[in-house]
Amino acid sequence: MEEEGGSSTLRVLVATDCHLGYLDKDEERRFDSFDTFEEICSLAEKHKVDFLLLGGDLFHENKPSNSTLVKTIEILRRYCMNDRPVQFQVLSYQAASLQNRFGQVNYEDSNYNIGLPVFAIHGSHDGPTGVDNMSSNDILSAGNFLNYFGKTDLGCTGISKTTVYPVFIRKGKTYVALYGVGNIKDERLNRMLNEPHAVNWMLPEIRDEIDWFNILVLHQKRKKASPSSGVSERLLPRFLDLVIWGHEHECLIDPEEVSGMGFHVTQPGSSIATSLINAEAKPKHVLLLEIKGTQYRSTKIPLQSVRPFEYVEVDVDPSDEATIHAYLHKIVSNLIEKVRETTASGSELKLPLVRIKVDYSGFSIINSKQFGQKYVGKVANPQDILHFTKSGERCKNTQESTNSFGEVDTNDLNKQTIEALIPETNLQLEILHLNDLNSALHEFVNNDDSMAFHSYLKQSIDEAREPGKKPITKGRQGSQNLLTGALSVLESDDEPIESSDPEESGSSQQTGRKRRAAPGGGDGGSAASAAGRRKTDLASFQRAPKKEDDADASKERRTPVAPGRYGAVIRRRG
Amino acid sequence: MEEEGGSSTLRVLVATDCHLGYLDKDEERRFDSFDTFEEICSLAEKHKVDFLLLGGDLFHENKPSNSTLVKTIEILRRYCMNDRPVQFQVLSYQAASLQNRFGQVNYEDSNYNIGLPVFAIHGSHDGPTGVDNMSSNDILSAGNFLNYFGKTDLGCTGISKTTVYPVFIRKGKTYVALYGVGNIKDERLNRMLNEPHAVNWMLPEIRDEIDWFNILVLHQKRKKASPSSGVSERLLPRFLDLVIWGHEHECLIDPEEVSGMGFHVTQPGSSIATSLINAEAKPKHVLLLEIKGTQYRSTKIPLQSVRPFEYVEVDVDPSDEATIHAYLHKIVSNLIEKVRETTASGSELKLPLVRIKVDYSGFSIINSKQFGQKYVGKVANPQDILHFTKSGERCKNTQESTNSFGEVDTNDLNKQTIEALIPETNLQLEILHLNDLNSALHEFVNNDDSMAFHSYLKQSIDEAREPGKKPITKGRQGSQNLLTGALSVLESDDEPIESSDPEESGSSQQTGRKRRAAPGGGDGGSAASAAGRRKTDLASFQRAPKKEDDADASKERRTPVAPGRYGAVIRRRG
Repeated sequence: MEEEGGSSTLRVLVATDCHLGYLDKDEERRFDSFDTFEEICSLAEKHKVDFLLLGGDLFHENKPSNSTLVKTIEILRRYCMNDRPVQFQVLSYQAASLQNRFGQVNYEDSNYNIGLPVFAIHGSHDGPTGVDNMSSNDILSAGNFLNYFGKTDLGCTGISKTTVYPVFIRKGKTYVALYGVGNIKDERLNRMLNEPHAVNWMLPEIRDEIDWFNILVLHQKRKKASPSSGVSERLLPRFLDLVIWGHEHECLIDPEEVSGMGFHVTQPGSSIATSLINAEAKPKHVLLLEIKGTQYRSTKIPLQSVRPFEYVEVDVDPSDEATIHAYLHKIVSNLIEKVRETTASGSELKLPLVRIKVDYSGFSIINSKQFGQKYVGKVANPQDILHFTKSGERCKNTQESTNSFGEVDTNDLNKQTIEALIPETNLQLEILHLNDLNSALHEFVNNDDSMAFHSYLKQSIDEAREPGKKPITKGRQGSQNLLTGALSVLESDDEPIESSDPEESGSSQQTGRKRRAAPGGGDGGSAASAAGRRKTDLASFQRAPKKEDDADASKERRTPVAPGRYGAVIRRRG
Repeated sequence: MEEEGGSSTLRVLVATDCHLGYLDKDEERRFDSFDTFEEICSLAEKHKVDFLLLGGDLFHENKPSNSTLVKTIEILRRYCMNDRPVQFQVLSYQAASLQNRFGQVNYEDSNYNIGLPVFAIHGSHDGPTGVDNMSSNDILSAGNFLNYFGKTDLGCTGISKTTVYPVFIRKGKTYVALYGVGNIKDERLNRMLNEPHAVNWMLPEIRDEIDWFNILVLHQKRKKASPSSGVSERLLPRFLDLVIWGHEHECLIDPEEVSGMGFHVTQPGSSIATSLINAEAKPKHVLLLEIKGTQYRSTKIPLQSVRPFEYVEVDVDPSDEATIHAYLHKIVSNLIEKVRETTASGSELKLPLVRIKVDYSGFSIINSKQFGQKYVGKVANPQDILHFTKSGERCKNTQESTNSFGEVDTNDLNKQTIEALIPETNLQLEILHLNDLNSALHEFVNNDDSMAFHSYLKQSIDEAREPGKKPITKGRQGSQNLLTGALSVLESDDEPIESSDPEESGSSQQTGRKRRAAPGGGDGGSAASAAGRRKTDLASFQRAPKKEDDADASKERRTPVAPGRYGAVIRRRG
């Protein structure tokens, strides 16, 4: 029995961009990502949430080191495996939305005692690559540590099509459709969202008595922050109620309404700073989301384990070297002192990150590495405390790739320039597509995927040979197969709702409880009895209305918000 | 209740060198290693063994691809997770012998329903590397898929010392001490075994009523096969009863007595051919080992899923090109035909591997790749069917690195020559040791471990700073810490045997049964009750007698073998 919430309040802890394994070879900072991920898991435990929801880039690399995988699995095993009953149900044919060959949500496997389920999409760092199209999330999913959703197989040529199958979740009288779209290249997703029939959003079947709350988790550059290359919220479908936006590291976690679209967007931001820019110096948070019916309340929870990070910008005139040196050293000392003062006396003192962005108009006269030697053992990044920019340069770059503060995110720049480095060719290729070759190049360079070209060529050739047929090149049980299988089942399995199943009565507190833990049923026969109860087809899929129709339907938006516990109230047409 | 064996017969399936992920980019052969590993697991299920024992090189690479990890985990999850009761117990303080931070054998974790436990050491391909000294086995161990034992931390300088803690296993009246030594460089292990106090073998405490059966699993080049560089059986301690020898790919699975040493050696051989040599063309097997008291029976089980592999050697005279071409093509056609005829009609036809070793006395006149083009789609290795050697060359190389058939194992040659490529230097280094630098070079080149030098240097510097202290550079919870912790516990925890624990009565059939599955105890409180019962300290550690003493003790060896069910009877001094 829950103290907070009650039987119909679904409680979710939302975090994103944990970047596990970030700087795993840095003596000082190698444990940072794990410390904070462990804090996030402990918050999930403390706040007794129903599940943990991760918005991509759980790993910093698509091929994490053995050490990173071990540490991650150890944390998940410690926090997710326990006797706490799972109090929600996943409805619908699960294999359609979840990427594993066991075809079910992890806590329903009667061989595991899962107390804290985790749902995750992939991000830009840990997305699927290689011949088998494997993400590092697939490893955790195979091991039953998380429920990987939002993995799409787009094929490789032309305008891609995809169908987004939500995970249908029910707790008491609350029904949530959880849509996931793992990272797709921004340009490609933009193209797809602009094309009328490229993205099919599968809706729950409309039934009078059920009001669905629709959440989308995605991981893309956000147009708001990167006007030239990001994805706009305005391309997302209007039936959504809440969008959880991963990838952007700045914490803009309070849900913000997108005017005219009828949904709110929360951008939790990363749990670790991977660029020393102002946006990352702000306090990091995770979101506690409580959903009851179609209302929700969001509470931001500050993360305590994040390494202190102080950021300042200064203007200097390079005429007098000694003065500048003294000035910059004074700033660093002050920042270190500030961190020392604000750290609670009992807590572990982590060396802070310090970044001074120095705007100067002449040549660089200070060697940043030399400058930092004085701070070895005092700051976590002595080698790159100073970052020099020229105002002129800044203006030029701003148009290309900036975060919302107009600063150059160097990581970001690196990502953009691979293709730009290669002079434009005007080759007209018949079988290979330039965009997709670029994409393979990107995989090859950034994700160290030595098979990127091989797998792209293979797909293209397969497609060229059999133009009508979708290529299946991903091993024996690729997700494509699962999806195809799922669809046919769904179409023939669309039964009317009946409350013959005792689990569906609204008052039951034990929906989704682990089979094994059920009193009296724990002596060996549980697996067999669980099997029959696994797939509750309360929710069936329906295709979402096309965007054209959608614009016509006037949604009941901005109904007055009831005062009291719950914040933003968003209701779907109905 | 077991049909076969009964309550005191421990049944173990032994396999080694599965090389999961071998050729995972080869269109034709990429699933071979997984197919056979799955067969091995299904044999374990079919023969209702108590556990599966793996002798190293489970993975072909220390950093398996995501796809390889996913496939491996899927197989283990399908075969190891079930309701079958585990009918043996692991005694003693487990953290000393098992490498995971949860400090217990995997089936005792009450959050998992393990029906088939797996015990594994690492090999030469998947051994620990990097700053955190992580093997790919550590990933599976963290995920509770196997029990990783025999991982040693040798430090890095001078003569290394290590203590081998066996896993003490009991089933009814059978007591097995399972020693594991994961791969160590041959030269190093040789040095250690020759040094009197370098390897400490922890023995079970001697008690009148218990007779231990001592098994050692190791993974080394065997002197028998590689006289110049392997490890000799004669350096192993005489108290052993059975040695399971991994690394050598040739199947010499029937236990063979080592005269004067009092133990037998079984060399199961790899489950997949990774070199196209004669030794690998023989049928592959795994071993069913049944141990009752101090007697055992071994049964070899042929593997059915192994890709057919035909090997012949021919002598040719290069004078007439056309004749030779025709001759060689005829041989290949015959071999293909032979495979087709011997394949059972119902079973899946896998393209065979074909290798013709051509001994010639002139220049190579046939392009092997060109020759093979005719066989694309007919054999699995069209690109390297032909392998040319000169008799003269062969004689020269035989002394350097050969298998037991006097053939050059090219894989082996590659491994040996890295250091040989560098001219000998006569540098006298004070802190860095040449052997260990070579070792780091080996890690760097062969295991693609970019941190090999870094971690070696760090260890050396730490040791140089604090000569008395063992370096602890392996993260926060390295196995070194566990071992140290274990030792102190063991020394203070050496209680006399008492049968107060009901589990220890010899007649109990349910020893080691999963806590969760125990009737009536399955409703949530099981974790707590299991915790108190976890560490049965029936077996305490004792140091093995020194080799000098050991030579004096005349062992009761070669007692007459009782005719009937059990084969080789080996008894320790009683």
